[in-house]
Amino acid sequence: MRIVIPFKKENAKSRLSGVLTPDERGMLAMKMLQDVLDATDGFAVDILTPSVFNDARIDPHILWSDSGLNDALNEYLSKVAEYGCDPVMIVMADLPLLKRRYVREIATSDADLVIAPGKGGGTNILSIKDPSRFSTDYYGTSFLDHLRIAHDNGLSVEVYDSFAAATDIDEPDDLVELLIHGTGEAARALVDIGFVVAVRDGRAEVERLSHTPHPP
Amino acid sequence: MRIVIPFKKENAKSRLSGVLTPDERGMLAMKMLQDVLDATDGFAVDILTPSVFNDARIDPHILWSDSGLNDALNEYLSKVAEYGCDPVMIVMADLPLLKRRYVREIATSDADLVIAPGKGGGTNILSIKDPSRFSTDYYGTSFLDHLRIAHDNGLSVEVYDSFAAATDIDEPDDLVELLIHGTGEAARALVDIGFVVAVRDGRAEVERLSHTPHPP
Repeated sequence: MRIVIPFKKENAKSRLSGVLTPDERGMLAMKMLQDVLDATDGFAVDILTPSVFNDARIDPHILWSDSGLNDALNEYLSKVAEYGCDPVMIVMADLPLLKRRYVREIATSDADLVIAPGKGGGTNILSIKDPSRFSTDYYGTSFLDHLRIAHDNGLSVEVYDSFAAATDIDEPDDLVELLIHGTGEAARALVDIGFVVAVRDGRAEVERLSHTPHPP
Repeated sequence: MRIVIPFKKENAKSRLSGVLTPDERGMLAMKMLQDVLDATDGFAVDILTPSVFNDARIDPHILWSDSGLNDALNEYLSKVAEYGCDPVMIVMADLPLLKRRYVREIATSDADLVIAPGKGGGTNILSIKDPSRFSTDYYGTSFLDHLRIAHDNGLSVEVYDSFAAATDIDEPDDLVELLIHGTGEAARALVDIGFVVAVRDGRAEVERLSHTPHPP
């Protein structure tokens, strides 16, 4: 099993620009990536990226590609298939609630394809037993597209039902989930910035305490 | 194990009033309740409600109470504790993605308290081994409040990680999840009304096709 994590540093998490500065968004994206690296520890991990890093933890995993997401991933799947056909698990980089247990459970499934849905029809994790028999189609309602591709290729499918795996961090409301359920680096970074959860009209929202001192 | 489902028919799902008429909201709420009854089939189920029904499927389960949610549930827990202390599972009525498998898994947990979080810090399912040792505190970030109550009472806790159980239907965006992942009565009702999933700027939204004929 190889794990591949697509990641782009530039203009990361633009839908959080209402609540985080560009630097903070970049920092949060890196912390989330580190949480995903923690969850995938023990596997052979490639970070598929068009970005350049200078980070001792990230650099050994870098696989550079400036293709778009689907092209880069499908080139990757072809390469893996060519060199011996290991199973491949594609894990999104913005899943800071992911735990090792979930990754191990997905890795040991008997299905040809395991798919962990994201919110809004997205796909957060895809585990592909035979990468020569599948290609990705991310964006839009990719969950449905991936089910269709699996069906067209005669693959058995397991839908991996997990709130943690479904929680990708894109919008301010998602930060509520990270603050409430997170235990890793990204959650700590949010707390350090000064975010708290406030309840307004019965709904939980994130609020930034301006008087919170910056961490040393 | 007894299962209790709090349910209120009046002005159901008011946050969906931008996309559904009052009648449609009431109908959707009933269909979701029926999906939850399907998922809890085989258990002794009480529907705790201030409403009056005339529905052969619902009526045998009705336990009437006009107290607020927490008062009604805590009176219920006290009564169950008084009459022999069965375990109690509290299941919200707006979980149309719930499946029997999840309910059975939660029912067979060894933990004193099993809690399935909802979005935004909510609590969608609570399974309480000894109802004399727990009281509910719904609304706001009830997930955190319930963890605290369990801790204060020395109870062991299992957080039940499920996207299906976390998906309570409150807002238009939630209807996307119901259309994409639902297989029960509520999902069919949405399709019958004429809802489809449309992708705009990379995000999935529900769209109502006005030319869709009403079902017979």
